[in-house]
Amino acid sequence: MINAIETYVQQHNEIHMEELKQLLRIPSISAVAEHKKDILHCAEWVAGALQKAGLEHVEIMATAGHPVVYADWLHAPGKPTVLVYGHYDVQPAEPLELWDTPPFEPTVRDGKIYARGATDDKGQLFLHIKAVESCLQVIGSLPVNIKFCIEGEEEIASFHLPPFFEQHLDKLQADVVTLSDTQLYGPGKPALMYGLRGLAAFEIIVEGANSDLHSGLYGGGVPNPIHALSKLLSSFHDEHGHVAVEGFYNNVIELSQQEREAFKLVEPDEHKLLTELGVSSLFGESNFTFYEQTTSRPTLEITSISGGFQGEGIKPIIPNQAIAKVACRLTAAQVPDEVMDAVEKHIHTHKPAGVRVRLNRLLRGNPFITPIDHPAMQAAANAYEEAYGTSPVYMRGGGSIPIVEVFGRLLQAPVVMLGFGLPGENLHAPNEHFHLENWHKGLSTICRYWYKIGADIKL
Amino acid sequence: MINAIETYVQQHNEIHMEELKQLLRIPSISAVAEHKKDILHCAEWVAGALQKAGLEHVEIMATAGHPVVYADWLHAPGKPTVLVYGHYDVQPAEPLELWDTPPFEPTVRDGKIYARGATDDKGQLFLHIKAVESCLQVIGSLPVNIKFCIEGEEEIASFHLPPFFEQHLDKLQADVVTLSDTQLYGPGKPALMYGLRGLAAFEIIVEGANSDLHSGLYGGGVPNPIHALSKLLSSFHDEHGHVAVEGFYNNVIELSQQEREAFKLVEPDEHKLLTELGVSSLFGESNFTFYEQTTSRPTLEITSISGGFQGEGIKPIIPNQAIAKVACRLTAAQVPDEVMDAVEKHIHTHKPAGVRVRLNRLLRGNPFITPIDHPAMQAAANAYEEAYGTSPVYMRGGGSIPIVEVFGRLLQAPVVMLGFGLPGENLHAPNEHFHLENWHKGLSTICRYWYKIGADIKL
Repeated sequence: MINAIETYVQQHNEIHMEELKQLLRIPSISAVAEHKKDILHCAEWVAGALQKAGLEHVEIMATAGHPVVYADWLHAPGKPTVLVYGHYDVQPAEPLELWDTPPFEPTVRDGKIYARGATDDKGQLFLHIKAVESCLQVIGSLPVNIKFCIEGEEEIASFHLPPFFEQHLDKLQADVVTLSDTQLYGPGKPALMYGLRGLAAFEIIVEGANSDLHSGLYGGGVPNPIHALSKLLSSFHDEHGHVAVEGFYNNVIELSQQEREAFKLVEPDEHKLLTELGVSSLFGESNFTFYEQTTSRPTLEITSISGGFQGEGIKPIIPNQAIAKVACRLTAAQVPDEVMDAVEKHIHTHKPAGVRVRLNRLLRGNPFITPIDHPAMQAAANAYEEAYGTSPVYMRGGGSIPIVEVFGRLLQAPVVMLGFGLPGENLHAPNEHFHLENWHKGLSTICRYWYKIGADIKL
Repeated sequence: MINAIETYVQQHNEIHMEELKQLLRIPSISAVAEHKKDILHCAEWVAGALQKAGLEHVEIMATAGHPVVYADWLHAPGKPTVLVYGHYDVQPAEPLELWDTPPFEPTVRDGKIYARGATDDKGQLFLHIKAVESCLQVIGSLPVNIKFCIEGEEEIASFHLPPFFEQHLDKLQADVVTLSDTQLYGPGKPALMYGLRGLAAFEIIVEGANSDLHSGLYGGGVPNPIHALSKLLSSFHDEHGHVAVEGFYNNVIELSQQEREAFKLVEPDEHKLLTELGVSSLFGESNFTFYEQTTSRPTLEITSISGGFQGEGIKPIIPNQAIAKVACRLTAAQVPDEVMDAVEKHIHTHKPAGVRVRLNRLLRGNPFITPIDHPAMQAAANAYEEAYGTSPVYMRGGGSIPIVEVFGRLLQAPVVMLGFGLPGENLHAPNEHFHLENWHKGLSTICRYWYKIGADIKL
């Protein structure tokens, strides 16, 4: 049965790749208002693809932000219902000049497809759509009931999805949630993510005089907001990479010795990492490894900074404003607003004289840990093992998919993260790509997983 | 004679204002390559205005950068030659949204003309052109020989003018150089600037990993260039506003007690300044007043900073690069390259681990002091006193007109800075403007000055 599906996938590879390229050509950047029409176009494209795959009740559903695309196939009475989640929005593609080929002109090179969204998440999302099509074409039915809930705001922290979800809880009710938006451990080596970091993102605005001032006429005599912001930002870490904001580590659950031992199987070689990243040293708290630091410890990263004339050349002014945007990744059981309370208190305590400072809260997402002994997780582990010929490792992810925590909480269902990306595929960076070997193995894994869920899970 | 000229100026006020508006409409921004055609258009416009005023040998002369506009009137044998210097280029107008009326649509409100370049320097430069026209129309001749040398790169530190000047030294030879690019002390209160600060401008580039990195996957584990740059920038000043770069104050000539006493006549009220600027405290070394600090002490100002995604929303990355641009104002007898050597050494000494850092030198200008007892300076003082009814104060300027030092050195001639701007006219900032009462008094001062030079100066 699986063999027949795999044969179908091989035979239809060319047409599937052409369709994937169509999807990747749409610059559905959720963070930038001027791409709103591309977002809507992408939602329509996804709806069309779901229809074509044989799903029913396809609907573009309005939210207070970008729309959700819904579809279902509910002809497996007595069988569990799997809710497939994914997102059709992508990160901005800047800096454009660092892409070898344009971000929205997908190109296949060396068995990889290059484009913004190739791995995060259009490539992985499309796997589930084509898995449905393949099952229905070859077998004529699915072994489980399936619902798709594909959103357009994941890259801006799914801001409008939780209220949408609460409003449509009956329609979206399921026994297990599945998504493919994470990574394998390495080539040919599957991994099951059992935890994700949360997110607290905010901007810090420092204001000085009521206008930009000529640096000749005023230089040396008035507070400079960029100086002040630099002082503030440099107060956030001590010299050991520890965040020096009082209360920042409140509620952090320390790693168990068992977890630290398990991580030794999956930790990257730090020397190799230095070469790969092109840096002379890593960063972080001295008593944690890179892997522990980036998956199980909270972090405070300045993601952007801006002040003064941003054009070519130099404009000799003291600007009247400087802004930094900050993303904190949080670990269980930190609460985003409590962390932002601590940072807000810190900036008011450490504010240099003569300037005004304020913090605007931008994004929140709770950290998440999923139970690894749930039957759906074991179904996923067995599917991976059959498709890849090796059992998966259990890992924690440093990134945030805040909606995962919401799904788990609202549906009271396990969330299985069936990732097919690979480390180094440049998600959120120039030259994002997806390895096509995981297109084939991924599609096989997904179909196998559904059959195991259909056989194993008791409603 | 002066009365007749003043009457002519009054009678032709409407047409002169229309012409000034034409000049102010040209966005001749020298720092931005895409405005090259506007620069050339502006040079042509100025050439036409010089021709129309009755000047001869009008010529747009190529330099290695933006062109110089030259013209002369040499029919006063035995009389001194005055070289009038000015610049037709302007600063960028960003942030555009803070202008009450668009920067290149000049508007007269409450006796002031608003536009980018209104006071720096198109408005003041145009005074000299109309002074020539008025003298020639009313008297039929000038009391001195006059040469105009109007450049297009003052706002980018006159980079190509010194070699141009050396190449055309014979043609530009003069007994006194005069420019109007500075300010009065206050409304109705003329000032003669006897010193200007120099300039050393550079950019600091911090680089981390060889690509932007996802802040979820790498956050907390790799060096962040914005963190590192903030640490570097915050190391530049101690908590007393003193620049903490070793060697930064080398060669600074300390103020004499006499100068500090003289400054008391012109120092701004610091409490009033706080209100005017909208800040709760000033900045600077604790043992200097605001006036001393901004005219006679060197300063290090971060004029812009940039790193990470600069668009709307937040892009959760660790950027691979962050850049700050810095302008140091220097006082006699500091040497720009020696100051940049000191800063370059400082950033390598204070560089955080794991990042690469480099300094690119952008602009250099020597500080300048002019002798206040030269007959040309006294001619200017007397002209001011007659036109404004009060004798000028002697001041030092915090800004830099680096070419002033070059003129003085190459021509071995005094440089007289006959400024007609006013403090608070927002040069280099939104809503730049020029008070039109100084149009009339300024034109009268310039004509009187030429007659005094013609009578007083021995060749």
